[in-house]
Amino acid sequence: MSPREHGPKSTGTLDPHLMAVKPPREGSFTAVRKLREGLGETREQRLQLPKGVRVVSEKSVKALHEEIHGLGRQLVKDIGRGKLPSLELPQRGGPNIVWDEENDLLLLGEKTTSRSLGSLRTAKDVTRLIRVLEIVHELLEKDIHATKREIYYNDVKLFEEQNNSDYAIDDIAPLLGTNRESTHIVASAKGTVIGRLVIEDSGDRIDMTRLGTGGWSITTFLDRVDIVESDAEFLMIVEKDAAMLRLSEDKWWQRYPCILLTARGSPDIASRMFARRLTKELKIPAFTLVDADPFGAWIHSVYLRGSKRLSYESPFLATPDLHLLGVLSHDLDSYNVPRECRLHMTPEDIKRAKEMLKEPFVTKNPKWVADIEQMLQRQEKAEIQALAAHGFEFLTETYLPTKLETGDWI
Amino acid sequence: MSPREHGPKSTGTLDPHLMAVKPPREGSFTAVRKLREGLGETREQRLQLPKGVRVVSEKSVKALHEEIHGLGRQLVKDIGRGKLPSLELPQRGGPNIVWDEENDLLLLGEKTTSRSLGSLRTAKDVTRLIRVLEIVHELLEKDIHATKREIYYNDVKLFEEQNNSDYAIDDIAPLLGTNRESTHIVASAKGTVIGRLVIEDSGDRIDMTRLGTGGWSITTFLDRVDIVESDAEFLMIVEKDAAMLRLSEDKWWQRYPCILLTARGSPDIASRMFARRLTKELKIPAFTLVDADPFGAWIHSVYLRGSKRLSYESPFLATPDLHLLGVLSHDLDSYNVPRECRLHMTPEDIKRAKEMLKEPFVTKNPKWVADIEQMLQRQEKAEIQALAAHGFEFLTETYLPTKLETGDWI
Repeated sequence: MSPREHGPKSTGTLDPHLMAVKPPREGSFTAVRKLREGLGETREQRLQLPKGVRVVSEKSVKALHEEIHGLGRQLVKDIGRGKLPSLELPQRGGPNIVWDEENDLLLLGEKTTSRSLGSLRTAKDVTRLIRVLEIVHELLEKDIHATKREIYYNDVKLFEEQNNSDYAIDDIAPLLGTNRESTHIVASAKGTVIGRLVIEDSGDRIDMTRLGTGGWSITTFLDRVDIVESDAEFLMIVEKDAAMLRLSEDKWWQRYPCILLTARGSPDIASRMFARRLTKELKIPAFTLVDADPFGAWIHSVYLRGSKRLSYESPFLATPDLHLLGVLSHDLDSYNVPRECRLHMTPEDIKRAKEMLKEPFVTKNPKWVADIEQMLQRQEKAEIQALAAHGFEFLTETYLPTKLETGDWI
Repeated sequence: MSPREHGPKSTGTLDPHLMAVKPPREGSFTAVRKLREGLGETREQRLQLPKGVRVVSEKSVKALHEEIHGLGRQLVKDIGRGKLPSLELPQRGGPNIVWDEENDLLLLGEKTTSRSLGSLRTAKDVTRLIRVLEIVHELLEKDIHATKREIYYNDVKLFEEQNNSDYAIDDIAPLLGTNRESTHIVASAKGTVIGRLVIEDSGDRIDMTRLGTGGWSITTFLDRVDIVESDAEFLMIVEKDAAMLRLSEDKWWQRYPCILLTARGSPDIASRMFARRLTKELKIPAFTLVDADPFGAWIHSVYLRGSKRLSYESPFLATPDLHLLGVLSHDLDSYNVPRECRLHMTPEDIKRAKEMLKEPFVTKNPKWVADIEQMLQRQEKAEIQALAAHGFEFLTETYLPTKLETGDWI
């Protein structure tokens, strides 16, 4: 038994119809160019929000200051009039969450709940809410940011448990009609960007083609970042660091005009927000490269539409012109991923995949439905790295160029 | 009940003896300067390895090529002579792992095991080992890198399970007398660096004071990175992203001459290797800022001495001139962290802390022993973020400057 016999095959890695495809060695991909021509002017129109949803917007420090002072004055006025002071809070629960098919977004409806300082049941909640308002006021005044955990520690006696301060924090942004970022309450960021992009971050001009193979760690203070220029034709979002590593080592962006972004698995808020800003401001499409499994599809959906928990922030986090490039279930055959490199789906995978098939944003997309159905029928999944069965450079040399040239995405 | 009553106190946050300390508003810290004076020439001497340990070293692509060809020729010669071909593998198990007190490192002893192609029990192992050698040869020839997972997928039929290829990979570096990095087998990197440092990565000159608040994502291809210049006086390793965020927002390195590094929790190989290179090449001390709990102490120890699993690589991964700056158990009183911001230790925490007290690298350090004993006696732990009880800027304005000025570290 010679070890050579086990080596990757250099032929037979592609379906016959793909063998005829000759992707460019560098420069633009045909299908990506066509896709870009379809974007542009229609975008602004599509981003009109429907009626009956809470419209939140980015607000300046000054505007938020005024909002907070206004709320304070209202409370004082109520007390002066002998009225029970209360706050009108937008409902954040399931029934008030709307999936907006037109705009492809999860949004928050207009239902509100009144919470009063006069009731024993809600007095503590309102006190906590007012305390968070005070803390946000302090953050804005000092022009600093804080995490949820730090806010909890800022007043443990009052909040008692982080659940309570988190709940108040989640109420604050919709109450002020803005997104979390504007309130200067931030989450840790863990994403990396590299490729054809120049930004300005806190006064520093950063050229992301000149950051070696490491790249720029996405800052959580995105309100300090300006996108300066880019000749990228698309954004590629990579689920896994191992795939990003391969693309970085190859300096893939030098050959193909693109920006690469990874959040290392389930994406954090800053990575999602930055992906959105890149596609929106640069008017370029984005693609996700994830594992061929239900978790990969779920990660794609989080970038695409937002998650239910943060519904009122979806317009600031979702990347609507996003396509699931791969790894698709049908790729496993088209690119002849060997049987032994495919994995059996677990019962949990099967459950997740079936749940995905019920989501309206999936059902309206026949290609996506077909791909998940194929996955379920075969009960097979695969990781991006399985493509290494055809050699370590198969991903960058064959798979991605062929996919992007032919437009084989969802 | 006014919310103001719950606010942070502006006085009484420090022990009386700390109130007298006046750390500089910017520039050098007294205790750090003294510490640096003690480094320098003694270092090279300390890094002499003792006898009886496997000396591994970084090797060039050419040297490794020769090693691999040499092993191949040896196997062929054995076969030609009618001898059973076999490989002498360094043992990687517990009894062959030495803690080198002089050099403060975990190291691999000189015991070896012979594995032969002639035995049914070991023939498969040796075949897998030879296959990995062949793959490493390919990586070196193409000058590309791959992850363990990709190597597994490269020949699933032979490896059957990733455990098997991992095992072979772990054998390869000591067999070739080198470290993992030199074999071009890499792991994902997740660290970030920012501050007073200029490097060159794959031909790009990167000034880390000019990367906004995000910083440079540490590349896993550290063999392509040169440290060019730095006027930093110390390296600060931060366990948690939330603390890094506070330091980045403040651009703390502008006021205090330092480099900041975070690996977001348990450190990956590239982050550890880069931390080591920074302290070694720049001849500066390093400090860790971790939670005041046994997991924090463990993270510090991984940077300091390496982990048992990777013992033969310890000399390339450990940062010997590393000090545990905080949060120490005695800091909780010295900096008056409120009772309600401290957490009870879990049974798991207590078990870990007791295990730490048995480690030779802890027992030889009386200050460390005392701190862990105090933790165990009080059964109290705390997160870095608990310092936010005194305000969001307490970490950067008071805690860190006071600690560094007084030299209150382990």
